[in-house]
Amino acid sequence: MAIDHISSLFAKLQALSTSDHGSVVSMNIFVALLCACIVIGHLLEENRWMNESITALVIGICTGILILMLSGGRSSHILVFSEDLFFIYLLPPIIFNAGFQVKKKQFFVNFITIMMFGAIGTLISCAIITYGVAKTFKKIGIRSLEIADYLGIMVFAFSISYCWLLAILFVWLTIFQTFPAIGAIFSATDSVCTLQVLNQDETPLLYSLVFGEGVVNDATSVVLFNAIQSFDINQINPSIGLHFFGNFLYLFTTSTLLGVFTGLLSAYIIKKLYIGRHSTNREFALMMLMAYLSYMMAELCYLSGILTVFFCGITMSHYTWHNVSESSRITTKHAFATLSFVAETFIFLYVGMDALDIDKWRFASDRPATSLAVSSVLLGLVLAGRAAFVFLLSFISNITRKSSKEGISFRQQVIIWWAGLMRGAVSMALAYNQFTLLGHTAKRANAIMITSTITVVLVSTVVFGLMTKPLIRFLLPVPSGLTPKRKNSTANIVDSASPKAITVPFLSNGADSEANLEPQESSYGRTPRSIRDLLSTPTHSVHRLWRKFDNSFMRPVFGGRGFVPVERGTPTERNTQNQWH
Amino acid sequence: MAIDHISSLFAKLQALSTSDHGSVVSMNIFVALLCACIVIGHLLEENRWMNESITALVIGICTGILILMLSGGRSSHILVFSEDLFFIYLLPPIIFNAGFQVKKKQFFVNFITIMMFGAIGTLISCAIITYGVAKTFKKIGIRSLEIADYLGIMVFAFSISYCWLLAILFVWLTIFQTFPAIGAIFSATDSVCTLQVLNQDETPLLYSLVFGEGVVNDATSVVLFNAIQSFDINQINPSIGLHFFGNFLYLFTTSTLLGVFTGLLSAYIIKKLYIGRHSTNREFALMMLMAYLSYMMAELCYLSGILTVFFCGITMSHYTWHNVSESSRITTKHAFATLSFVAETFIFLYVGMDALDIDKWRFASDRPATSLAVSSVLLGLVLAGRAAFVFLLSFISNITRKSSKEGISFRQQVIIWWAGLMRGAVSMALAYNQFTLLGHTAKRANAIMITSTITVVLVSTVVFGLMTKPLIRFLLPVPSGLTPKRKNSTANIVDSASPKAITVPFLSNGADSEANLEPQESSYGRTPRSIRDLLSTPTHSVHRLWRKFDNSFMRPVFGGRGFVPVERGTPTERNTQNQWH
Repeated sequence: MAIDHISSLFAKLQALSTSDHGSVVSMNIFVALLCACIVIGHLLEENRWMNESITALVIGICTGILILMLSGGRSSHILVFSEDLFFIYLLPPIIFNAGFQVKKKQFFVNFITIMMFGAIGTLISCAIITYGVAKTFKKIGIRSLEIADYLGIMVFAFSISYCWLLAILFVWLTIFQTFPAIGAIFSATDSVCTLQVLNQDETPLLYSLVFGEGVVNDATSVVLFNAIQSFDINQINPSIGLHFFGNFLYLFTTSTLLGVFTGLLSAYIIKKLYIGRHSTNREFALMMLMAYLSYMMAELCYLSGILTVFFCGITMSHYTWHNVSESSRITTKHAFATLSFVAETFIFLYVGMDALDIDKWRFASDRPATSLAVSSVLLGLVLAGRAAFVFLLSFISNITRKSSKEGISFRQQVIIWWAGLMRGAVSMALAYNQFTLLGHTAKRANAIMITSTITVVLVSTVVFGLMTKPLIRFLLPVPSGLTPKRKNSTANIVDSASPKAITVPFLSNGADSEANLEPQESSYGRTPRSIRDLLSTPTHSVHRLWRKFDNSFMRPVFGGRGFVPVERGTPTERNTQNQWH
Repeated sequence: MAIDHISSLFAKLQALSTSDHGSVVSMNIFVALLCACIVIGHLLEENRWMNESITALVIGICTGILILMLSGGRSSHILVFSEDLFFIYLLPPIIFNAGFQVKKKQFFVNFITIMMFGAIGTLISCAIITYGVAKTFKKIGIRSLEIADYLGIMVFAFSISYCWLLAILFVWLTIFQTFPAIGAIFSATDSVCTLQVLNQDETPLLYSLVFGEGVVNDATSVVLFNAIQSFDINQINPSIGLHFFGNFLYLFTTSTLLGVFTGLLSAYIIKKLYIGRHSTNREFALMMLMAYLSYMMAELCYLSGILTVFFCGITMSHYTWHNVSESSRITTKHAFATLSFVAETFIFLYVGMDALDIDKWRFASDRPATSLAVSSVLLGLVLAGRAAFVFLLSFISNITRKSSKEGISFRQQVIIWWAGLMRGAVSMALAYNQFTLLGHTAKRANAIMITSTITVVLVSTVVFGLMTKPLIRFLLPVPSGLTPKRKNSTANIVDSASPKAITVPFLSNGADSEANLEPQESSYGRTPRSIRDLLSTPTHSVHRLWRKFDNSFMRPVFGGRGFVPVERGTPTERNTQNQWH
């Protein structure tokens, strides 16, 4: 009797332990592939065409093909991708690390330009793409009703993150009575991709402009989604634009302040806790947890988590990072960078594997010509839309600059245009997730749009991504003393330095800041001197006032450079400062 | 029409975004509580009674009470705890870090003793508790049938990790025809608790013995579970013991080798990849991912993931860690420690919050006397069972030691007995998970056993935990030059040093290793000289042979101390070596 009892228990036990076996297998494959991506990415680092994201993408596609063949053409998926995984676990470390390591000087000096690119630029790009889509899709053979049908879902699909579209949708509805969703979808720059192709040390101005645009764009979409939610849909009138603007400003400010507040709180806590003893574990854990807390709190309050965690990263690198011990400084800098790096690799690996979702391609294969035409039109419109606003807004931006050296040269404009073309993981993850979840009836139309999205993402990431490095080298030849080859060989020294922006004059005592305000490679744009002087004076005054306030009030309270004695810094830290600035 | 379409989309969208709002709230609370635990733990560090786990436990209980009151007595849970979360995400970093930072010399010198404690000790303890339970429970009023009834489930509940019980169950069945499951459950030491109460720097011998026992015990259970699975249950005969032993040895060896292999692979890859340039991000990511891969691969092959990842940690700290750059070394050391620290805090916080599961207490409250009696009997038997094997096996171990200085003194035996008494998070998480999942009919019996488990866990962790620090200070007074107070003030220096065991003679050139083979505080146990000499000679020969092999073959291939030039080490690193060894 007892034996029988035990037997049945064993049966249950065995069933239980094998039920998760599938997920254990897929986790093994994923972790092993991540290792492979890192190793191969390291070996290909010297290659002038490749970058880490393309490596991960290619490895993902190869694995997808392998799994497809092994499973007999049934499936190429080994891991169910959830939006939660992406927005709760993968995105926060990437954006936080970007804020933590961003060159703050570059970011704040170009703040107005970044805001222009992120807000007005996306609007222009969207309008052009929408107009193009409306004109061409009828000719291709996709009926307008069909478009309207799946556009509704598309709006839904992308609205959680890229909600520009919803905002523009309403404005557009009142003007043209048509759907500009496709335009909105394809005019959002992927900030994760930008991090991969542009190098902050080589091209600081371009990096801050394109990446900053991505962050603002990303944040703006969430902010606008919330703004729209608070409106009554049946009362659309011209004053809605003003309402949007007000809400946008309110939520943008709130998100930023929440991030800054959390960062300052962490700085204050760590400064006060330093009672004659440091604990690297606690300092690192506290910084990590509070950064994550800021993101989750923003999500809780329906704010923009991305904007919040980005500014939390900036604040932490400006104050908190200087209150911790030397070993905590090295640990946090590298650990945050590594977490971000792993998350990025994971995303690209997944996108590569997901590109072969066989069901979607099967639907689209009925009309390959249409699918191809849609993809081509979209790619062309993305190129045209981005070109329009980059060159227009760069011109406007150049007028407001003080000296011609600070302007955005034509060659730089070309790179900004090119580097921001990539449509990436965020778009695709969202599109997939929502389309497969809803299972809309207009399957074929959905399938064509999904395969087109995949095509655009793959082409833009691989082709545009592959050509970005050579393009930068062609348009902006590096000074002979600092060729990329030599830069790589000194990577180790840069590696062990402080978060990159910490040591720039913007944050130091300020004696040499005026001389350093020119970005390194800008020497082309020319605007009349009188207008420049007129418009650029406020920026410099704000900068000077902030420095004064920071030195006299913020640093004594929240710590920062010079208030906790630096302990035994590695000598490289100082070398690097001299080398890169 | 278009407007209506949009309206319905909005409704869906809102439903979607609010559905996760509950989990966002609970994540916020958990992250905020973790921050609070870290801050309060730091403030209470100097306190001679408290430790981090008790702080987290108390904060968890307080939060549980608060939530219970706010929800009107309905629930004290804010997060659904899953076994996956525990075994896939929280446990691996803790065990890996333990292996990474363990004093390897202490661990391997005491290897035989640790194996004895982990294997034979648990068996003795289990037998005593089982006998006690069988004798007393009938008197208390729990009928034997009832016990048999829920014992079956208890066996099931704990078998996945603590599967000692299953093994002993079969042996016992053939002898006594009774159920020793309770004995097995309560004779398993929690290795996570041990990490919290024993300090590796202050009491290296005790730490390695008690923690090593926990790891071996943990691993043995999984190994035995797999061994049992491969047996035909209907053919129990005396030779089954031999089969068990063979399978145990096979799986123990396989798990260990898998861990060592993964560690060596990572060392080899990183050594080969160092082509004139280091990348801290890649080195750190690779170490982290490969350590995790070893755990997942072990789980995939039904091996002991804990044993695998533990030996992977040891191998990585011996080889891989020396192949990476200085900044990677600091980063990995602190980042792994921090991840482990956060995971531990999370577990204790959760256990505290979970202790107030109102449903279970309601069931048990019908018969408070029985519940109290069961808890008391269990606690008493845990004390007696552990006392029996610790003192017996310590005596046997002392006979085999070379010099009296190496033996385990009586005072140390008391501490080993005491520190291993804690029954912790692992037991409770498993018990909860399985009991609530199955929803067995004998609800009241279940409830009594669960509340008893909670009582034992809370009492053992809080009371025994609180008294461990003072007990150690009373029984083993620290040399006057190194009081705990002063130790804390130099914590920062220790903090920035290398993983602790790296610099012990066992791994260095070996000139001074003979002189250092005596553990620091062992100077009591006395055994006849002749027997000691006879038995201890092989250990020393093995040690010498290994050093020779390591120097002439392993290090040239896999790297390690002295093969990659040390770059700009922080001066503290050398100071610490002198200070602690």
